[in-house]
Amino acid sequence: MNEAHIIQFLKGAFPEEIGDDAAVIQQQNTEIVISKDLLIEEVHFRRRYQTPESLAYKALAVNLSDIAAMGAQPFAVFLGLAAHPEDGPFVDIFLESFVSACKNAQVKLLGGDTTRAPSKKLYLSLTILGRALSPHQLKHRHTAQSGDIIFVAGPLGYAHIGFTALEKNVAGYESYKDHFLNPKARIDEGLWLSTQSCVHAMMDISDGLWIDLQKLVQASQHSAKILLENFSFTDADLVACQNLGLSDTETRLTGGEDYSLLFTVHPQQAEKIRTQFQENFGYPLIKIGEITAAVETTSVQIYRDGAPCHVALNPFDHFKRDQDY
Amino acid sequence: MNEAHIIQFLKGAFPEEIGDDAAVIQQQNTEIVISKDLLIEEVHFRRRYQTPESLAYKALAVNLSDIAAMGAQPFAVFLGLAAHPEDGPFVDIFLESFVSACKNAQVKLLGGDTTRAPSKKLYLSLTILGRALSPHQLKHRHTAQSGDIIFVAGPLGYAHIGFTALEKNVAGYESYKDHFLNPKARIDEGLWLSTQSCVHAMMDISDGLWIDLQKLVQASQHSAKILLENFSFTDADLVACQNLGLSDTETRLTGGEDYSLLFTVHPQQAEKIRTQFQENFGYPLIKIGEITAAVETTSVQIYRDGAPCHVALNPFDHFKRDQDY
Repeated sequence: MNEAHIIQFLKGAFPEEIGDDAAVIQQQNTEIVISKDLLIEEVHFRRRYQTPESLAYKALAVNLSDIAAMGAQPFAVFLGLAAHPEDGPFVDIFLESFVSACKNAQVKLLGGDTTRAPSKKLYLSLTILGRALSPHQLKHRHTAQSGDIIFVAGPLGYAHIGFTALEKNVAGYESYKDHFLNPKARIDEGLWLSTQSCVHAMMDISDGLWIDLQKLVQASQHSAKILLENFSFTDADLVACQNLGLSDTETRLTGGEDYSLLFTVHPQQAEKIRTQFQENFGYPLIKIGEITAAVETTSVQIYRDGAPCHVALNPFDHFKRDQDY
Repeated sequence: MNEAHIIQFLKGAFPEEIGDDAAVIQQQNTEIVISKDLLIEEVHFRRRYQTPESLAYKALAVNLSDIAAMGAQPFAVFLGLAAHPEDGPFVDIFLESFVSACKNAQVKLLGGDTTRAPSKKLYLSLTILGRALSPHQLKHRHTAQSGDIIFVAGPLGYAHIGFTALEKNVAGYESYKDHFLNPKARIDEGLWLSTQSCVHAMMDISDGLWIDLQKLVQASQHSAKILLENFSFTDADLVACQNLGLSDTETRLTGGEDYSLLFTVHPQQAEKIRTQFQENFGYPLIKIGEITAAVETTSVQIYRDGAPCHVALNPFDHFKRDQDY
């Protein structure tokens, strides 16, 4: 049993229903998107460095990001909370902060469930709802086309650098830590991209580019080329990686929890999208590579300076990562 | 902090949104109802007596019941699952059974989240969706009227007798145990009641009649009289209570997890509803008492043979019940 096998089994049972960051419910002319995420203490967060305020903000942001990834507008959330009786003070601040975060995001808290936890581990379960702004405007994973340019909006690997500094209890690295503790859901970006018909496929990056791009190409039954020379860390990022014992290439490719948007664009419109995105949102897109036809099976190939290269990567699996996180 | 305070705080923050068994989302002419429930090992179930098959069935039934309580038709569910790697075999059977339970209930599994649990406790979080069959047909808690007759469809206290036998590891009492392990969501009953305009208020009974009727009268800003002589246990039920050290009155009033429907009916139509219900569903309604005007505050008074009586009752609160369940 691992997460991938479970998802595979459930997909097999309901093949038409499961596959994107959020499920879509068609109601007459409106599409509602729904997503659900668990956040569990000592699996997804540690109280040693996550305050109840930032936990509330992050729990909501992670869920908002799934709605952003579909190009929809979030409007409602449900909160499930299991807490130990001794955690009352933490829970009180968490709940107040969660209500504030909802109001800031213009999302209504519509209900949920609170219960006792059998241990001193906090369990959060959020269900988030969004609406498509117009019919047939949502973006999916399975619609990438051969030749599409692959872009990322938002950082790659920064949250992982911050996470590593927090786990190793190293002072400094505040901006990286902030990427991990207070990630940004790119709702406005997702909504804008949803209005662009040349944007073919979209998802958010929660498990790292390497894993999530594979999900996208598998759903689309295509392959992808990652061109490593197209995106690199700054000197400061490289120093941070070196000091923290991280491989910079692996960090960029597999670092999770950035909640950046991953999307593919028709090659003829790629430069236009890149320019307009920068104008609208004030930061550049990262050009990752391109979608290619699948030869026999789907795959993601990594290229450096025009030649295929092999990078040793540790894929992400909650069930296996008992030791390190 | 306890469950009631948390719900009160969240209701205060979003006063128009929270209050029924499920939240309602209005989409043009359709109403979608959504509810979320957590099921946690050693809080809501124990593996010692709950097989993965019956856990899957019960997890879905408990959520279906919230949709039944609104008078809606369930159509989709999301599953959040946190499990320890060593629990793979249990999880495998649970997932297969959950898929079967969904198909039997004609509910599609639309998504969810699976993750590692930090301990060997299984955490389930379900989000269920239903649809109103016609506009303006849903039933709520806040709409009981003075003079309404209070009915219950389904057993009262049977699940608690079964639960007690399971907790005390006593053989026999199989039908009571079955009420606890495999409760029935009364979807058809809820749908039929939703078509009756004389049915004013409805909810399901998860925390016991005593607690849930208080929720209903508080939401309706009315009071209620429970007429104990109107419903009593059979001789066999009384013997079961006696053997298991249970007070029969307390068991009927506070025993949780029966997932019976609690509803109020205009007094002039009460007998008609009672007769038609028996004809349609083959079992009788329990007549609990009546809704009265609230004098100063809302309250639930217990009467026996025409006179008010005091019964010592232990209200249900997940956060407090660390010792016993």
